[in-house]
Formats: sequence, C-alpha cells, structure tokens
Amino acid sequence: MRTGDADTIAAIATPLGSGGVGVVRMSGARALAVARQVTRLRRRPTPRYAHLTRVVDAEGALVDEALLLWMPGPRSYTGEDVVELSCHGGPVVLRRVLDCLLAAGAHPAGPGEFTLRAFLNGRMDLAQAEAVADLVAAPTPAAMTVAANQLAGRLSDAVREMRAACVDLLAQLEAEVDFDEDDVPAADRAEVAATLAELDRRLEAALASARRGIVQRHGVRAALVGSPNVGKSSLMNALLSSDRAIVTAVPGTTRDVLEETFELDGAPIVLNDTAGLRATSDPVEHLGVERTARALEGADVAVLVLDASRPLLGNDALAAAQVRRAAAPAIAALNKRDLPQALRPRDAARLLPGAAVVETTALANDVDELRQALRAAIGLAGADGGLAMVASVRHQDALQRARGELASARRAAADGEPSDFISIGVRGAVDALGEITGESATESLLDAIFSKFCIGK
Amino acid sequence: MRTGDADTIAAIATPLGSGGVGVVRMSGARALAVARQVTRLRRRPTPRYAHLTRVVDAEGALVDEALLLWMPGPRSYTGEDVVELSCHGGPVVLRRVLDCLLAAGAHPAGPGEFTLRAFLNGRMDLAQAEAVADLVAAPTPAAMTVAANQLAGRLSDAVREMRAACVDLLAQLEAEVDFDEDDVPAADRAEVAATLAELDRRLEAALASARRGIVQRHGVRAALVGSPNVGKSSLMNALLSSDRAIVTAVPGTTRDVLEETFELDGAPIVLNDTAGLRATSDPVEHLGVERTARALEGADVAVLVLDASRPLLGNDALAAAQVRRAAAPAIAALNKRDLPQALRPRDAARLLPGAAVVETTALANDVDELRQALRAAIGLAGADGGLAMVASVRHQDALQRARGELASARRAAADGEPSDFISIGVRGAVDALGEITGESATESLLDAIFSKFCIGK
Repeated sequence: MRTGDADTIAAIATPLGSGGVGVVRMSGARALAVARQVTRLRRRPTPRYAHLTRVVDAEGALVDEALLLWMPGPRSYTGEDVVELSCHGGPVVLRRVLDCLLAAGAHPAGPGEFTLRAFLNGRMDLAQAEAVADLVAAPTPAAMTVAANQLAGRLSDAVREMRAACVDLLAQLEAEVDFDEDDVPAADRAEVAATLAELDRRLEAALASARRGIVQRHGVRAALVGSPNVGKSSLMNALLSSDRAIVTAVPGTTRDVLEETFELDGAPIVLNDTAGLRATSDPVEHLGVERTARALEGADVAVLVLDASRPLLGNDALAAAQVRRAAAPAIAALNKRDLPQALRPRDAARLLPGAAVVETTALANDVDELRQALRAAIGLAGADGGLAMVASVRHQDALQRARGELASARRAAADGEPSDFISIGVRGAVDALGEITGESATESLLDAIFSKFCIGK
Repeated sequence: MRTGDADTIAAIATPLGSGGVGVVRMSGARALAVARQVTRLRRRPTPRYAHLTRVVDAEGALVDEALLLWMPGPRSYTGEDVVELSCHGGPVVLRRVLDCLLAAGAHPAGPGEFTLRAFLNGRMDLAQAEAVADLVAAPTPAAMTVAANQLAGRLSDAVREMRAACVDLLAQLEAEVDFDEDDVPAADRAEVAATLAELDRRLEAALASARRGIVQRHGVRAALVGSPNVGKSSLMNALLSSDRAIVTAVPGTTRDVLEETFELDGAPIVLNDTAGLRATSDPVEHLGVERTARALEGADVAVLVLDASRPLLGNDALAAAQVRRAAAPAIAALNKRDLPQALRPRDAARLLPGAAVVETTALANDVDELRQALRAAIGLAGADGGLAMVASVRHQDALQRARGELASARRAAADGEPSDFISIGVRGAVDALGEITGESATESLLDAIFSKFCIGK
C-alpha cells in the first residue's frame, strides 16, 4: 500500500479544466523547503498567511504568480507540513507548477494520499476520510449533507460511543473470570444483559436509515418498460418534470441505453431510456423484447407501464413476463387514467403478481402514486425522514456484524454461559465497530478505500 | 456592459468537476459580511490568514468545512474586499456553498467580472487582464510563458514607455505652436525626427515576434492531403512521434474530421485527419475529392503528400488542383525517399507552383525537412527564437496602427509641415498604444474582451 512516510508529496488538487483558480498542494517534511525553492522566497513565510509569490522554473523563467499558503503540521489537513499554491487555473500552468515542485524534490502523490496521511496521522478517522470522497462525489444535496455530517464526525461519534461501551463491558466480563461462574452475582449478569440490550437498540437506530442513506448516496436505476404507445416517454417526462427525456439517439450509431436522472427524496433515480431507440426490422426487437431486456439490465426497480384505455395485448404479457423474471422489485403503472378505462387494477395485479399497482396520467403530470410506490420499492419510504447516519454498504455491513456478534453475546448471557463465552461476541463487536472508524482497519481495507480516491485528494 | 459597482459578486472559481479542493470567491464591499454570515464567524478574521470554518445554510445545516481567506482591498486581486472559501471540490458542494453566499446577499458574477474589476480598479492594465485568460487557456508551455510574462507586465511596460515618449513628443510639438513655423529651431525638428525614428525601431522590434507569438498562442491547422497510399498516416504519425493519429472513426457515425495535435517550437499544430474515414461507394468521394476538401477547410497550411516511388497519377493532379485553389500556403512532400525514385522535386514544383518542396521518409521518421518547411510557412522560422512579446492579433493590430500613425508624423516632419500637423499622427499613436494597456479602451472593447472570459475569473 501507499505509505505515510516522510516523503513530501505534491499534486494538483483542483479538477482539471480551465478556471480562475487552480490549487497545487504539497504535504511532508520538505514541503516548505520545496515551495521556497520554486518561489525563491527568501524569508520564512508566516504560517497560514497568504503570500503573493512568483513560481519560477529551474532556469528562472516565470511560470505563474501564486498565493502561497503554508500550514505547518500537526495542525494541517494531513497533520504534516502542508503548502498550497493557489495559481491561475489552466491545465498547462498547473502541470508546469507541479513539474517545478517535482523537480525541486517533491514526489507525485498517489490516489487519496493526502487523506490517507490525514488518517494515518490521526487528523481524521476512517469514516471521516471516506466522507471526504463522498462529499466530493455527492450526486445530490441530500447525499452531500449526509457526507458533510459524516465528515464532521456524526457517525464516528456514535460508533465510538458504542465501541467504548463494548470495551467497558469486556473489562467487566474479564473481571468476572476470577470468579467461579456460579459465584457471579446475579445483579452483575443483569447489568451485562441490560448493556447488551441497550447496545442492540443503538445499533438498530443507526441501521434504521442506512438503506435510505445508501440509496441517497449511490442512487438507484429504474427501468420503464412496456408496449409501444403506452406512454413511457410521457411518464418519464412527468417524473423528470421537464423535457429532458426527449433525447434523439443518432440512428444507427449506438444502441446503448440513454439515461436521465431525477431526484426523489434526495436520492438520484436514474431512468433507463430506451424509448428513443430507432425502429428496426428485426422481428424480435420489433416486439420490444430486446429493448425491454436492455432497460431491465442492472435496474433496481422495474416499472411496467400499461395503457389502461385499452385491453391487454400480447406485447403487454411479453413485457410482464420479462419483468417477472427480473430480480428487481416491480411496479405496474396503469397509465392514461383520463381516458375511458378498459383495464382495472386487478388485471395488472394478475399480470404482475406481487407488484405494487398504481394509477397515473402522465400527460397531466399525475404521477404521485408512482413516486410513492418508487419510494417504497427502493427503501425511501417508512424511514423517519431525518438525516441518514449510515450511507455506505461497508458501514452498514460492519454495524450488522457488530449487532450479530452482540446477539450471540446476549444468547450466551441468557443461557448462563461463562463470561469468557460472552466476551467472544463482545470482542467481535469491538472489532466490527473499529473497522468503521479505522481502529481495526487492515492494510488491504485501507488500500481498497483510498485507491478509489482521485489524485490530489 | 457589466459594472464595477459596489455589488458584491460571488462565483465558483475552480473548474467544474471532482477534485480535492474547490474555491468559491467573492469580491465587493459586503464580501466579509456575507462570508461571516454563512460561516457564523463571530470574530473578524485576520486579513490574509487561513481560518478553518464551517459553511452552514440558512437553516443552520452544515454544508462543508472550508478555509476562509479574507483579503481586504485595495491590496487584493480585484482591489476590493475579496473572500475565498477553499472547500471540498465536488460540484454539489460548491454549488451549495455558492447558493449560501447568494442567499446571504452576494450576486452571481458575470464572465470575467473579477478580472474586469481588477482592471477598473487599477490593479492591472488591459493587456495584463487579457493575459489572465491567455494563461488559463494556454495550449502549450511556450504559450503559457508568453502569457505569464504579459501578466507580469512585460508588454505593458514596453507599450507604456513608448506611449510616454509619444506624450512627451506631443508636449514638445505643442510648445512649438507658439512659434511661427519658419522660426522653429532646426535642432528641435531634428530631435523630433530622431525621436520618431527611435519609436519606429521600438515598434518594429515589438512586432517582430508577433506572428510567432500569435501562432504559439492560437496554434495553426495543417492539412495533410494526397492520393491514397502515399503515406499520409505514416507522415502524421512521424510528426506526432507517437501512434496517436491512428484513431478509428466508428463507421457510419460521423464524417467529421478528426484532429491530432503536435508541438512545433512551442506552437500547437492541429493536423486534420481524414485518413481514417471509411471507404465509400460514392465515386466522387472515392477519388478523395470530398475528403481533401474537408481537410483543407480552415487549414492555415496545406501539405500535399506525393509518393516519390511512383509516377504522378490523376489523383495526385486532382489533389494538387484543390490545394492550389485553397488560400493557405502549400508544401509538397515527396514521401518514400527510401524506395527507388520515380519522381523528382521539380515534378512536384511543377504540380504545385510556389510551394516549398521537401523530401520525407515517413516510415523512418525522417520528417525534418517537412518540419522546417512548416516552420517557415506558419511564421515560426526566421524569428530570433526569443520569447514573443506580442501574442494577440488585437495587440499586433494596435501596434501596427501606432506605427502607421507615427510614419505619417515622420512624413509631415520631413516635409516641413507645421507642428500641429505632426501632432495628429503622434496623437493617433498615443490612442492606439493606449488601447493595448486600456487607457483608451472603449466600453465596447472591454465588453468584447471580458465576455470571452469564463465565470469565476
């Protein structure tokens, strides 16, 4: 894995492209020395003070004017000496400034190496480090707020409290080892059981919003499928509340699925759009079988659209069969409720057993029932609506493992097992919780997490 | 035009995208008040000192942790109070931080408005303001260095010195008005003539590298045309010194011309690549007529490639005729010099009268003669090789007009015209030079310049 050793690292920290400002960042023991060399700064700069300087290359040629900001460790982002050069934001300028720093002795930073060093130097825990990546990549304001709170320590504080309670419990259980098991005072056992029950409640609370948090962070894919002319495009437009869905694919260029995104309770919902794909002479595709299959591929929820103003046709049955075979939860949308009705909800329920059946009039933008059904299908409904604390499958998994370990400890306690039997589960919970904040993170876990960061973060 | 009034403006200053750092910038009298409101900063921050703060929205919800940097005017980029918030670099985060600033009373900045204010407040002149945009957009290190030097005032200083000399000359000429024209001492007239000659030499020197500077800044388009199998792709690869030219266009999707860029003396040369386009059954296109026309469209220089190992064919004559009709300077490249030769340079010269004729062996990467001819054709050759001072058509035009005005002043002086006749040309030169640094810039000129900037600059 990448090391947090004494190397001084440098990278362009702002996105590539043209902008008014671009930042090149360094961290490490030699950061200030390197910065002074490329800026020919004679005096030692004042810490955390923005000095206007000029960056020059090894031959003394002017590269750019820049604001130099020296943030000495340990009170810096990484805990090491950090220097930021705020330059003009052009790719060639930033690349040349970076080249000057590398020529003066800095090393190119690896992906996420600044944040990795912040973690290794105790400036933030692992959940906070992950929140940095989530914050930057947040697809919606809701996802961003969850990440910002995770960065501020909301999840970490809760996890650390639970872990501390487990560690206290372990100490208590270990003290009991000195007793004969029959001699352990009943009051002590009752206290252990009460602590375990309380921890279970806390874990349950932390997990309660996890599904919503994960959906808000990663979004879900929804497929709109159905026979031609049932109103898929109109339904899509109504969901998007705009005309964005009407995208004409260049005929013959690509048959990839187009995508449009709308927000539902702060979660990005990606709609697979196959409606705009060209007509074909292929008889199978003409029936829409291939198109439907493509839309359903990777979908987290499938919406079968039916035209309620006409009886069911063979195409409807064909699409329904494909939806039934797909793993995703299904919704049947009876569209065109403004016209004389030929279909009843129970016809749709028979076609797609187990699916939620909703009524829509896409052309009148009446899709409230569909939104509600989507909420339920993807786990947004039923939650308290408050801010999700858990927004990562990794954290959800660790919390669930901790809960499982504590459940086995509770069973052992209830069965009157010796205290070291109870300890096994509690120790497992300590480890699982420590994986979230990083106390029990392995190198390969750190590698897996930070390799997904981009360079400069 | 946009105003430099007391409004406090705000914009995202870094490129859009995901990065470790993103900067939101404000300028104006209320910048600090707005920043303190969104960060809930109780104390007045220390000027130019990086304060770690939290940005919260109107409801008090955490948006991001940020470094706040307050740079009070007039010693700031714009000359006004400037606040920079260095945030996490995600588009949703930065958009929300900007929204918080706008909700707290800042106004969205227009294109180039920060730099426009810097100009209006006398923090930089117009040539330096233009250099900001050039620096950010610089396509090559050479173009970047020219822009960096222009930003540092190299061009402005030279122009201002010439303008000051003209203003002194005007004062001298106006003093002469009090004399009868026949009474003007001959020594004074000789001094005026000497000053005008010296100014002409300085303008000539400033203009000497202009063509190279403009080519380095904007690049040129080169078209490689010729019959099939003469080695256009190999020649392209040799020029690119890599395999980048081998781009397979998706058949049937587009017939746009593909582009590859290589650097010649710091200038970006864009090669129009039509070699990869699919074969067609269209008999006219089959001959390459359409393809050649497309490659020649907008080209600044045309290279007709001939296979020197075989006699000229009808296709060669056809391509040569198209090159002759094109406005661009032409080069004939006799390729495949490693094979037994069937063509001599004078055959090529007869085919393309006036064109430079060079010999190449693309497969052996022998394209030195072609590079040299390209240099000459686009104005890179013959210059002193030093740093170009002028890199903009606008500046070149103003310098040429100044030189023209002074030439008429010289003629008037030589013809013994009265001093106010001489003054007309000198005054014209003062105005033309003032357009470069902005002393005589009109509103519409400023509008034309700053509207090309992006927002946040």
